[in-house]
Parts: sequence; C-alpha cells; structure tokens
Amino acid sequence: MVRAEIIAVGTEILLGQIVNSNAAFLSKELAALGIFVYHHTVVGDNPERLSEVITTAEKRSDLLIFTGGLGPTQDDITKQVVANHLHKNLVEDTFHLDKITQYFAGSKRVMTENNKLQALVIENSTVLQNDFGFAAGMFFTLSERSYMLLPGPPSEMKPMFTNYAKPLIQNATGGEVHLESKIMHFFGIGESRLASDLEDLITHQTNPTIATYASDNEVEIRITASASTKEEAENLLSQTEEEILKRDGEFLYGYGDESLADVVIRKLLKGKITISAAESLTAGLFQAELGGTTGISDILKGGMVTYSTEMKREVLGVSQQVILEHGVVSSECAREMAENIRKICHTKMGISFTGVAGPGGMEGHVAGTVFIGLSVEGFETETYSFVFGRDRNHNRNRAVKQGFQVINQFLTEKMGF
Amino acid sequence: MVRAEIIAVGTEILLGQIVNSNAAFLSKELAALGIFVYHHTVVGDNPERLSEVITTAEKRSDLLIFTGGLGPTQDDITKQVVANHLHKNLVEDTFHLDKITQYFAGSKRVMTENNKLQALVIENSTVLQNDFGFAAGMFFTLSERSYMLLPGPPSEMKPMFTNYAKPLIQNATGGEVHLESKIMHFFGIGESRLASDLEDLITHQTNPTIATYASDNEVEIRITASASTKEEAENLLSQTEEEILKRDGEFLYGYGDESLADVVIRKLLKGKITISAAESLTAGLFQAELGGTTGISDILKGGMVTYSTEMKREVLGVSQQVILEHGVVSSECAREMAENIRKICHTKMGISFTGVAGPGGMEGHVAGTVFIGLSVEGFETETYSFVFGRDRNHNRNRAVKQGFQVINQFLTEKMGF
Repeated sequence: MVRAEIIAVGTEILLGQIVNSNAAFLSKELAALGIFVYHHTVVGDNPERLSEVITTAEKRSDLLIFTGGLGPTQDDITKQVVANHLHKNLVEDTFHLDKITQYFAGSKRVMTENNKLQALVIENSTVLQNDFGFAAGMFFTLSERSYMLLPGPPSEMKPMFTNYAKPLIQNATGGEVHLESKIMHFFGIGESRLASDLEDLITHQTNPTIATYASDNEVEIRITASASTKEEAENLLSQTEEEILKRDGEFLYGYGDESLADVVIRKLLKGKITISAAESLTAGLFQAELGGTTGISDILKGGMVTYSTEMKREVLGVSQQVILEHGVVSSECAREMAENIRKICHTKMGISFTGVAGPGGMEGHVAGTVFIGLSVEGFETETYSFVFGRDRNHNRNRAVKQGFQVINQFLTEKMGF
Repeated sequence: MVRAEIIAVGTEILLGQIVNSNAAFLSKELAALGIFVYHHTVVGDNPERLSEVITTAEKRSDLLIFTGGLGPTQDDITKQVVANHLHKNLVEDTFHLDKITQYFAGSKRVMTENNKLQALVIENSTVLQNDFGFAAGMFFTLSERSYMLLPGPPSEMKPMFTNYAKPLIQNATGGEVHLESKIMHFFGIGESRLASDLEDLITHQTNPTIATYASDNEVEIRITASASTKEEAENLLSQTEEEILKRDGEFLYGYGDESLADVVIRKLLKGKITISAAESLTAGLFQAELGGTTGISDILKGGMVTYSTEMKREVLGVSQQVILEHGVVSSECAREMAENIRKICHTKMGISFTGVAGPGGMEGHVAGTVFIGLSVEGFETETYSFVFGRDRNHNRNRAVKQGFQVINQFLTEKMGF
C-alpha cells in the first residue's frame, strides 16, 4: 500500500491569494491509481519550515509529491531544499536548458541568469518534461520512498503529471489493484437519516468503503471498491449499491455527475415536453436554473415572476376568489398559477411556486412554507406543500430543488420516464 | 507573534472531491488581522492520523484552526478527537440543541439521535453560534495555545468566523497594533488594468498594504493599514484610498460587504422605485438576484421570462415588425421589452435582457452578445449593447451584473442617487 502526501510550497497559498486546487487534482488522479492520499500540507517559501515538513512527511508517507517553487525567482526554493535535505546535488538538464536558451534567442528578450535555474534538477532523478513552461519536474526513489517535484502553475503541472508522471507512478506501484467507485445522489432525505439507515454498513465498511456527503440540500453516497480485477471491483460495488437501494432507493435520483436538475432536463428534452413556470417566492430561480443548459430553448418557453399579488391577479389571472378565500400562500393559488401559466405559454407542463421566503411570516404561515403546483396536459393538476423553515435563501433554493424533484417523480410515476 | 495553522478534516478533500477553499478564506482573514499562517494541513476522517496531526501542529503553532468534521455522522470526528487529545469532556450546548429540536418539530421530519451530536461542545469552550446550520463551533485556550473548531460547509463556516470567531481572535491576540482595512469594489475594469494603473502604489506598498482580487467579473482592492491608534490607521487608509480614487474612481461602485446588487437594491428601496424585468437569455437570473433580499416586495412587482420568440410577441407584446426587421437579439427588441414589461407591471422602472447565451451564435450575432433595455417613467428609454463572448454561464451572469451596473449609473447620473 502506497501512502502519499501532497506538499504545496508557496507563501501565496498561506496568504489566501490562491486556492490549492493542485492538491484536489492530484488527489483525484492518485485515487484513481489506487494510491491513498493521507495528507495535504501547505508550507511557505521558507527553507527551515519546508525542511521540517519533509521530515514529518517522511515519517508517515511513502510518496511525497511537491508542487510549486521550481521557478526562477528567489522564493522558488523547493528543489534546493529537497536536495539539501537528502544531501544530493543539483545538475543541469540539457533539454530544459536548451529550451530556455532557444526561447530567449527567439524572442529577442534578455535572458537573465536566474532563468537557467529552472533547468537545474536533482542528480539521478528522472526528469519530467514541461511542455507548457521552463521549469523541469523530477521523480526519484531513495530508501523505498519516492519524491516527485512538480511546478506550481496548474497549466504546467497538470499536463506534466498526466503525460509524464502518471505512467512512472503506475510502473512504480505495479498496478495490481483496481479501484472502482460509484456516486449515488439522494434528495428528500437528510444525511443523518441516511447514515442512520445505513449504520451497520458504514460501521463495518472495509471494502467497499461507503462515505456520505451532504451539500446543497442533497446527500451523496460514494462507494469505492478495490479488487485485483475491474470485474471483481464492480461486482463488489453492485452488491453494496443494491443493499443501499433496498433501504433508501425511493430517495435516489441519479448517479455520477448529473444533478437533479440535469436529470429532469434530460428527461424533458427526451420527451419533448415543453415547460413554463410561474414563480413567486423563488422569483425566477427555477427558470434561471433551466436556462443554464445548452439547448433548453427546445422546451423552455418562458414564464412569469409574479411577486406581487396584483401580478398574480392581473397578469397571471389568478382568481380574486382564490386570493380572498385562501390567500396567495395556498395550494389553491399554486394550482391556478400552474394551470394559468401553462395555458398562457402554450406548454405541456406548467409549474408554480408560491410561499413565504422569510424571515417574517405571511398570511398566518411561517417562513419557509412553500406550495408547488404542477399542471400537465392530460393529467389532473397536483399541488404539494412543504415547510422548510430556514433562512430566506435556503428556503428559496430548497423550493427550486423540490420543484425539480416534484417533476422528476411525476415523470417517473405518471409518464414512465 | 501568533503562528497559526489551519487543519481541514475530511476524507473528501483527500479524495479531491472538494477543494480546500476554507483555508484560503481563513488565511486571507487572518492575514488582515496580522496573524501569520505558516501551515495548512488536510487530514482524513481518521482518529489516529488526526491526533498525530494535532501533535505536530502543537509543536509549531500557537493557534490551531480546524474546519470540518462537526456534523452528525460517524465520520464527523473532529471535536471528539480534539477532546480526547486534550483529555476534555464533551457537553451539550443548550442553544444548538434547542435549535435542532425546534427545527425537527417544525418541519415534521424525524429527528434521529445522531442529530443531537451537533450540539455537543468541548467543556469550558466559548461556543460559536452557527446561524446557517446546526453544528456548533468552539474556541478555547489551553497552555497558551488556542484551538478553534469551525464547521466544514463554507456557507456555515464563513459567517461563523466573521461574526463570532474573528472578534474573539482580535481580543485574544491583544491590541497594541490597530489594524484597519477597507475593501473597495470595482466593476467594468479588469484586474490587470487596475494593477497597472496602481503599479507604483503596489510596488512600493509597506503600510498600508494593497491587494487586488478578481472574482465574479469584479475586482476588489483591500487596503490594510496598521498603526498604534485607530485614528492613525484610518488616516493612512484614507490617503491611499484617495490616490486610488483619483486614478480609477469612475469604476468604483461600493465598499465593504455590499455587492453591486446590494447597492442598487438599497437605492431602489430608498427611492421607492418599483421595478419589473423581462428576461430572455438570463431566464430569471436578474429577478432571482433581486428576490434574495428581505423586503424586496416593496419594489419588486415581478416580470417575465420570455425565452421563446412567441412569448416575446404574444405575452410581452413585442411588435412583429421589430422581430422581423431587427430580430430578437437587437437593441430595438430590448427597448420594446423594457417598455412593455414596465407598462404591464405598472412599475417606475423596467429592464430587459436579450442576447445570445451561447455556445452557438444566433441571428448573425456571436455568443455573448447582449442587449439591455432600461425604461424609466419620465425618461427616454435607453439601450446598451455588450459582447462578453465567453461560455454560457459566464455570459448570463455577466449580463445580470451589467444590468445592475446600468441601473446604478442611471440612478447616479439621472436621478441623483
């Protein structure tokens, strides 16, 4: 088992000027290679602190991957510190030295001496070619521990890793282990409830591993299996997946990278089901979400934001009787809104959102009360009510997501999608 | 001198599923408080490895800030491990326990036992209130070393840090030096242009320091001054601010936490200027942005999303002549859309957005072509055209921001706000 640590060197990261996105990229890549990343470390351009970080990493990791600090300026110290730490010399790499010299000759710019520093590499290392910059990368193994030095700019680091470093790692680690993972998306169930339903699976997990993540009103489960063949790993995944579906399958909406909105939009496009919306508390959020998808004009005709009562009555045509008897925060109002917008826009499907965004209540309803109406040509209009009861933006975003869920269930249950 | 270390706890970061943006946020905030961040560390949801990381951090840092692992599931281990490590007990925090209990009572969802875990805190710590979630944060000092535990989701962590943690750190780190900072927001000028206009100021900066940040189509300048008195620090700030305004003041829209939309909404509310919108490529994004503000119903009546040409013609009443002669992507169409929506919704101001979101072109216009119309009671209707020419979502978001800028300039120049 290889335990990897990713060490980013750069004071600009410690000042918060840039986010360490390199670590995320490398972590994903290494996970796919079956290598466990147990630590990310960020340290500044300071030789002593970097050396201490290397000492700590050597105690707990088999593969140390450094990013940053290979450039030509005074604060680029990574290879010098790594070389000192391991009592190694730096030598010139002809390929990168020629590249630098030729560039400056061609551009007629003056080459300062420090530019040549980028062609120095640690002796006896495999040089990793930089196709998008001048700083050479390197890889070497010493006392059963491997060291990889990569440049900091993602535009140089990523292609260097993918094209030159990854094959080296694959060779070095043998590749006997196949890692397969699957992401399952759930809506309408909290992370704690899901975790509690799956408690025995999670407690006894070894292979596959099961992890739950909550974000943005959803829960995601990631199952990862390792085996000596791809088929075996996939087989392990399927068994766990089935067990999860048995317990909470009703809340599953999709797999992989697809969001709930993506799933609904895919189905609507496939079925050529045109859609319109009348939004009160969400004020356009639902339609804006639809609008993000290329090609949506095939099915999105448009709709209205009827924030005020006058707009609901005069422009959308909600009856005065409904407004007086039930108020605008009611399933009756949601029903008329959905039916009317569908007729006005000549679409197959019309959806409506009305409710109390908050923080204050309205018409005797608490903040977070939401009514959704769904009117579909050839079907009875349906209305749904919810109480989310959190802050204004949570309630609005949750309502939109709930709208997509309502459509998804309708498409599945009533229309066979 | 306080040496800080930011420790993110979460296997999902080590798997590369999420980027550790919390560390960048906290680093920036701490730098502004004059606190040096020397290390970022990321470790997984593993008690032994987390405990080892704490031991290492205690050897080199005075302030340990943890993010993540305060939630209700089994892999949320941070406070348990920190408590064990320091031989402390966990106790229930009444405020958060009540909050959790009330939420589940109100939403009629089943509260599982593990939800209560989020209300456990380390004994004798100062509890940091979570206004956007259930997991309590905490802060305490032991043997001249301080520990801070914050939740992982940025939407919970950021407000908790800003509103509750930051003042505590300011108190704890003494106050011989007064640090004052000011954030200036610019729209319509690129970061490189701004940096080049201010090059001499930025090169020779010592006190105040000047930092530029580009994000979300805007540029932000943060000036930070330190002095022995608040007045002196503020005086230093003002001098630098004036110098910046002399050079690029025309692009400044506001200060501090206020976004461009906030500035516009504040002015509209102050002037009781009712508003409606007709949106094509933005499909509701502009109205949704307005809808995020509490009390917006005083001025937002509503509007339409006229995505299809039929909607523009039949529901919004754009003339057939304009559509045939100029197309829907035209200043003429934007003009009629703005005027018509204002009349239909009986508002003082009507704004329209039409254009090509992309990726493909339309009616001979390239992707990113946007026309905005602004119709205000008592004024000539104005139209504006832009070519943003980037990806679909950039173009749509940029259009919305540009719409707010158009209104802001109109309010300033024509209406004296």
